[in-house]
Amino acid sequence: MGCTAAQLCFRCDSLSSFGRLGASKQPFPGCFLSLDKSSESGGRAPREQDLLLAAAYVSDAQYNRNIPFETSPQAIRLYYFYNHWTMQAATYFFICIDLSLALFEEPALFPLPFLATSIVEVLCLTAFLGRLVHFAKVTPQMVFWKDTKNICIMLTIVLTLIDLIVYGSLEAVNIHSVRWSRALRPVFLINFPESRQIRRAFRSIRNTLPDILYVFLLFLFSVLMFSLMALKLFGDRGLKTVEGSPYFTNILDIAFELYVLVTTANSPDVMMPAYDFNGWYSLYFITYIIINTYIFMSVFLAVVYNNYRKHLKNEIRKLAYLKRHKMIEAFNLLKVQVGTEFVVKEAQWRRLAKVVAPDISSSHLELLLRVSDEGQKGHVDKMNFLRLADLLNIQVVTINIKRHPLEAWMPRVYQSSASLLVQRMVRHRVFVWVYDVIILVNAIFIALDERNPFISYAEWLFLSLYIIEILLKLYTYEPRSYFGRRQFWNWFDVLIIIAALVATVANTTIQSARKYSSQQILDIVLILRILRLLRVIVSIERFRVIVTTLINIGPAMLTFGGLVLVVYYVFAIIGMEAFHSKVQFFDPNFTAPDALVCGNPALKDSAFARNRYCKNNFNDLASAFILLMELTVVNQWHVLAGGFALVTHQAAKLYFVGFHIVVVILIVNIFIAFILEAFFVAYSLEKSEVETAIEKKIQELGVGIQEEAVQDGKLVDNMDTRDSGFSGDDGDNKRKALKGLYFRIASKKYRTVDALLQQMFESEIAPEDEGPPLDEILNFSPSDICPKNPSFENSA
Amino acid sequence: MGCTAAQLCFRCDSLSSFGRLGASKQPFPGCFLSLDKSSESGGRAPREQDLLLAAAYVSDAQYNRNIPFETSPQAIRLYYFYNHWTMQAATYFFICIDLSLALFEEPALFPLPFLATSIVEVLCLTAFLGRLVHFAKVTPQMVFWKDTKNICIMLTIVLTLIDLIVYGSLEAVNIHSVRWSRALRPVFLINFPESRQIRRAFRSIRNTLPDILYVFLLFLFSVLMFSLMALKLFGDRGLKTVEGSPYFTNILDIAFELYVLVTTANSPDVMMPAYDFNGWYSLYFITYIIINTYIFMSVFLAVVYNNYRKHLKNEIRKLAYLKRHKMIEAFNLLKVQVGTEFVVKEAQWRRLAKVVAPDISSSHLELLLRVSDEGQKGHVDKMNFLRLADLLNIQVVTINIKRHPLEAWMPRVYQSSASLLVQRMVRHRVFVWVYDVIILVNAIFIALDERNPFISYAEWLFLSLYIIEILLKLYTYEPRSYFGRRQFWNWFDVLIIIAALVATVANTTIQSARKYSSQQILDIVLILRILRLLRVIVSIERFRVIVTTLINIGPAMLTFGGLVLVVYYVFAIIGMEAFHSKVQFFDPNFTAPDALVCGNPALKDSAFARNRYCKNNFNDLASAFILLMELTVVNQWHVLAGGFALVTHQAAKLYFVGFHIVVVILIVNIFIAFILEAFFVAYSLEKSEVETAIEKKIQELGVGIQEEAVQDGKLVDNMDTRDSGFSGDDGDNKRKALKGLYFRIASKKYRTVDALLQQMFESEIAPEDEGPPLDEILNFSPSDICPKNPSFENSA
Repeated sequence: MGCTAAQLCFRCDSLSSFGRLGASKQPFPGCFLSLDKSSESGGRAPREQDLLLAAAYVSDAQYNRNIPFETSPQAIRLYYFYNHWTMQAATYFFICIDLSLALFEEPALFPLPFLATSIVEVLCLTAFLGRLVHFAKVTPQMVFWKDTKNICIMLTIVLTLIDLIVYGSLEAVNIHSVRWSRALRPVFLINFPESRQIRRAFRSIRNTLPDILYVFLLFLFSVLMFSLMALKLFGDRGLKTVEGSPYFTNILDIAFELYVLVTTANSPDVMMPAYDFNGWYSLYFITYIIINTYIFMSVFLAVVYNNYRKHLKNEIRKLAYLKRHKMIEAFNLLKVQVGTEFVVKEAQWRRLAKVVAPDISSSHLELLLRVSDEGQKGHVDKMNFLRLADLLNIQVVTINIKRHPLEAWMPRVYQSSASLLVQRMVRHRVFVWVYDVIILVNAIFIALDERNPFISYAEWLFLSLYIIEILLKLYTYEPRSYFGRRQFWNWFDVLIIIAALVATVANTTIQSARKYSSQQILDIVLILRILRLLRVIVSIERFRVIVTTLINIGPAMLTFGGLVLVVYYVFAIIGMEAFHSKVQFFDPNFTAPDALVCGNPALKDSAFARNRYCKNNFNDLASAFILLMELTVVNQWHVLAGGFALVTHQAAKLYFVGFHIVVVILIVNIFIAFILEAFFVAYSLEKSEVETAIEKKIQELGVGIQEEAVQDGKLVDNMDTRDSGFSGDDGDNKRKALKGLYFRIASKKYRTVDALLQQMFESEIAPEDEGPPLDEILNFSPSDICPKNPSFENSA
Repeated sequence: MGCTAAQLCFRCDSLSSFGRLGASKQPFPGCFLSLDKSSESGGRAPREQDLLLAAAYVSDAQYNRNIPFETSPQAIRLYYFYNHWTMQAATYFFICIDLSLALFEEPALFPLPFLATSIVEVLCLTAFLGRLVHFAKVTPQMVFWKDTKNICIMLTIVLTLIDLIVYGSLEAVNIHSVRWSRALRPVFLINFPESRQIRRAFRSIRNTLPDILYVFLLFLFSVLMFSLMALKLFGDRGLKTVEGSPYFTNILDIAFELYVLVTTANSPDVMMPAYDFNGWYSLYFITYIIINTYIFMSVFLAVVYNNYRKHLKNEIRKLAYLKRHKMIEAFNLLKVQVGTEFVVKEAQWRRLAKVVAPDISSSHLELLLRVSDEGQKGHVDKMNFLRLADLLNIQVVTINIKRHPLEAWMPRVYQSSASLLVQRMVRHRVFVWVYDVIILVNAIFIALDERNPFISYAEWLFLSLYIIEILLKLYTYEPRSYFGRRQFWNWFDVLIIIAALVATVANTTIQSARKYSSQQILDIVLILRILRLLRVIVSIERFRVIVTTLINIGPAMLTFGGLVLVVYYVFAIIGMEAFHSKVQFFDPNFTAPDALVCGNPALKDSAFARNRYCKNNFNDLASAFILLMELTVVNQWHVLAGGFALVTHQAAKLYFVGFHIVVVILIVNIFIAFILEAFFVAYSLEKSEVETAIEKKIQELGVGIQEEAVQDGKLVDNMDTRDSGFSGDDGDNKRKALKGLYFRIASKKYRTVDALLQQMFESEIAPEDEGPPLDEILNFSPSDICPKNPSFENSA
């Protein structure tokens, strides 16, 4: 992809873009356990571009140096404005609007006239165009026009407008045509700079294609060979399927049936007639399943996974070198010669830090300088300067205990022996166990019949027990720590309980007022009640590890959500154009003669109608999405495909086969590859420690605290001991000098596979290594990084 | 596992055991492209034990040194006899007989009286006992009794005998009891020393269990929570399934249905009633599928794969160190002091080599000595001695062209210009293309209706064209090279064609004689005809690579065959005891009233009967295996489980769920892990080269030829150029001195993941490294080898 520094930066920071500028305005000091979300994304490198811009701004003396973009204050302001979260939120808002238009257009869930939807669409297109023009303003022209993304967006806007006009004018003279440009809408989602992750997934798929193509051809060849064999073996036997239709007589039908068998969807059924005829024929099907279902499908996974790994490594290497490259550029802008080496003067360094992080406290700045300028020589050398971005990303905490507000307001009461007893009780393990038992008893009550009045009273009892628990915890622990940003389970607890309380009260009110209970509210209450049971898991350490890993990879899984959304959307639009209103769903109580054949006589006696799949149709976007989800799960997809083939044409099966290939063979395998990789990284992290150069240095200076020391549940207890440990440690001047400021070191807490891998890679580049030139970085190909001599550890 | 050197050797060489002793008796010299199968298994270390024994034998002066087993000539003979292929074949034969007894016992495919089967079983048990006694003779007592394998076998023999006696005497008084010991039969297959691979797979499963258990519990918890939710959400709605039964009203049924949904087997069906009732309920099922089907199943794969890798690495490290350990022991037996270092004298070394490989040619021995004793100092130092086993495993080829026999017999005719033209023609690419086209045309003819006489004549034409092709090739290429051991596709071609020829002739004869064509022969002819099409793949390079990889991992896949066999056998025996004759299959043309309900009125209106699954039953071993295969494929397994639950008891579903957990969650995932690993190794090999120390040395001495230079199809052509290259190379004295003997270096041809990984690992142990002491080696645990600092290449 041809694009340079200025533009790549938008890629790099897209993930954390919502929180990014907000982050640089957030105050660090004073708050224990305050978590800065963007810095949490670890090695994601959110600040290099800011630093480079700031360096250009600070070094106004050297204003005319050759850097590839404008650095006038306006340009910088424009750039900051482009990256401002409101602008990005607006873009996403318009993308959502644009995509959800399909809900209102024919075939619609909520029909709106064509005029209304087309006006909204034009509005969205204008917004996209505006965003693009803004982007062009902050990017060098050459770079802008070289980028295929921008061209894509413009082309899509033009095509959509043409389609709108053509469709509108044809509609005006009552000719119905196809709104084909609707399938292009996901282009906006993919191509806006903020969707780097989705693009990466698509690139990953594109790179996998050549490798997978050969395996796929071989696989097709195998299926065809088996089809030919089946035709010869079973075609003339006069066998019948369960439904009485002839069995394996047409080569195309056979090929389709055997393709379905690969997905296992028709597994024993397709074999039964031949098996009933002669037991030995089962060998044919067993051979087929072993070769095509087990071996070929595993090979597909292997190919996809292998490419995913290669590609991931390449992207990470690229990012790491780009980051290094930008920092060197910034250094070159600010450097002055002192003795034999080039350095950055302390004053310049301070100005730079202040520009990049305007709200940084002076003690924090002092600490950073201390780490950067070890010898206190009044300047920062190149190696230390290159680490500045990482340094700014490391979280700084102040070691001071926050006292409980109640302690501040009424110290006597709070410190009374009764109060202390309560606090000790709440902190005790038994307190947790008691509540675990309560939850389990609650589970049994939930399973019982709730129309029994005794049980519905019990529900109130449980609810109040939970509320008491929360109040007791708030009494014991400092509320702001209790609701710390990473205290996922505390938030979960409180939200579930409050929601349950509100819903239960609402339901009771409605019930007593109108003698009628609202189904929706009741459902919500039920789900909330059962979700409460989740808390038992958290008490068991082994479970918590697994759940934490799953929650940690959650955000990255949203990438797949985006990917799936794009593919589903395109297939849904095509499906809606091709199949809408061919299949109708009638209310089960409705006794129309057509209800059993989904309103289409062609479905008479079909498996589709017999299984009552009428509601699986393409009559609106929501139904189409649910149908596509069912196809993704694979089972019975041949029945669905067969049904739609009956109401249209046999060729419709190609649509379903295509969907299977794209979604199940490509996307689901990438998803599995992603989960595998995430778990492997989690496993290898469990046993080892990755330290970056900075982390080592901070440890040497003795100004870091390990993340684990300030972990979840035990935070306040830990804090106490830690504090007393420090007060006994008064002799340590170095620590005192830094006024209780410490770096939080998060070595075991990398949230994403990416961040961790980047850390690993960076810890392997030598500090002097300036990396390859920019052009080369941008053209890295995955095959470059294959090790010449794979090592043992490496390959197994 | 407590066991020492002598016994572990049987483990190490089990895979290649059939060919091993045969191999050491095979003559090396003279034959170009002769492949020694045991040496092909790469780093499998077939000779260390032989070397150690031989060293003890050679060093008779030092006879009384402390080595852990007897080395009298008888003992060695007994040991060789134990390892002789006839003995091993006999053991496998008896294992097969024992396992296949289930075919003849009630419920039998071919019923035999109890007396007959029990006599055969006693015979097998005697054979196993004999083998065990023999093993005890060649193993130190202490070691023998410490080994759980031997205890297992003895216990199983005793238990089987008890069961036989009890069952027999009860049968005599007409009380029918259960032959429970039949489920123990696979113990013999697992526990005989030759089944190292299957045991390893079982160990791998056992080691995975603790990790997987926690994920599984969490998964169960999730399923139960969703069940509870489903009960509350749908239980009171009065919904009905397609079959009219109440929908989601019983928590146990719900849990089973949701477990089935994880396997996707009832995918849209289980959702349809709720979805028809209210579209929003689909969200519940989509959430369930994402969490349990996609995420949890991927996590299972990740856990299994991770453990598989760890375990594999550990085993390989163990093997490599054991090998090193044995070679050091052998060195210590033979060493004498020369100057400051210990060495082995040339005379001793020669005797040793002669004992280990009695048929080694003197020029080959010279070459080995040359590599081992570089400075020609008359003795071999320790480092070189340690490599002896590898050195003996490396294949030696003589570089001389074999002339075509026809050329020898009638040189004038063979070298005539017409003959040369034919040869050039056959070697030309176009010749291959022409035959590819012929095959494709043949494919079309096969697809056409064969009752047309023109088409059946065409079949004769194609057959003769193929025969002509083979004859031409044999005329052009040297026949022994054409049928070289690795010329898989040549063998394939010829066998397919000859078989097709024989079968077609036989069919025609029968047809013309009796006006009746035998179905079996016709089927075979058809399959052979279609298999011919496979040859097209070989012409396309990219396909050949994939196919070759698949064929290469084929033998290792047989391990999984063994594993699956063991698990299937146990489940089949249990299933046969529990479900036999509950479900009957009637011929489709038979019109008994019970035929439609499989002879069991309990199945009336069940999905089992409706789908005509009557032949899926446990009435004999073959049917049970096919049914278990269908359960492995997963689809419709709930229908099968439901059917058997109806005819027995709802608890029968546990059997099916258990089977799913064992086979699909554990074994199929290990299979996928294995394929992934094999492909990754194949990929990393494609781009890199692994060289062992010896290979480097051989290269330095200039006495190696790269494997690729003498590859498949092009072998004879290559030979020519290579030969002329050498004749122009006369000045090279080193080569001449070695009389045309060269080492074949197989660096890119490691057949198995194991062999390759062992090579990689060995190339990483320093030559001086003596490895940890034996006890430690035997107790290596996988967690020892986790890298302290995972590297970037490593983890991604």
